[in-house]
Amino acid sequence: MTAPRNLLASLPDARAQELFTTLLARPGVRIERIVSQGQVTPADAPYDQNHDEWVLLLAGAARLWFDGTGEQALVPGDALLIPARVAHRVTWTQADPPTVWLAVHLGET
Amino acid sequence: MTAPRNLLASLPDARAQELFTTLLARPGVRIERIVSQGQVTPADAPYDQNHDEWVLLLAGAARLWFDGTGEQALVPGDALLIPARVAHRVTWTQADPPTVWLAVHLGET
Repeated sequence: MTAPRNLLASLPDARAQELFTTLLARPGVRIERIVSQGQVTPADAPYDQNHDEWVLLLAGAARLWFDGTGEQALVPGDALLIPARVAHRVTWTQADPPTVWLAVHLGET
Repeated sequence: MTAPRNLLASLPDARAQELFTTLLARPGVRIERIVSQGQVTPADAPYDQNHDEWVLLLAGAARLWFDGTGEQALVPGDALLIPARVAHRVTWTQADPPTVWLAVHLGET
């Protein structure tokens, strides 16, 4: 086994830009940590992915907007599936303490 | 998108037995929540899996023993990969508040 790594301790400084760290990558699945400190997705450039993404908020707080269903507040422990081809935007992230996401990308190409 | 589900709220009562909930299943990947309240793996029946498992402790506290490397304490945020064929046991879990794990099973057959 590998030594455990704490995803919430010694967080990198993400004030200048969101930080994306791939924790594990296998065919068809990639596990990623994202640290956000106030960043949002530009209103004119929503995410529109070819693959499903399962997201879990680990720390902080955030708001996500989805085309067709509107905005959703997330607190730690909240998990949801973002299906492929559903346009979405991060509309708010807590800056301090930082917001930490776990993302599991499924069938990414 | 699906409505978010909070993995840490309204936890089921796991005092009588550990509770395993599959959150998402796809070819080659299965995401599971495990709620433990004091349960351990019997010393004479360690886990010995055919597939890799990535584990993240979400709440509570636990200890894991691995064949060859010994015991490891886990706190919330700790993540590690348990490779296939590495015998391991859960040697302690915090009962109250409950211990909550996220497990991502990779290439499970």
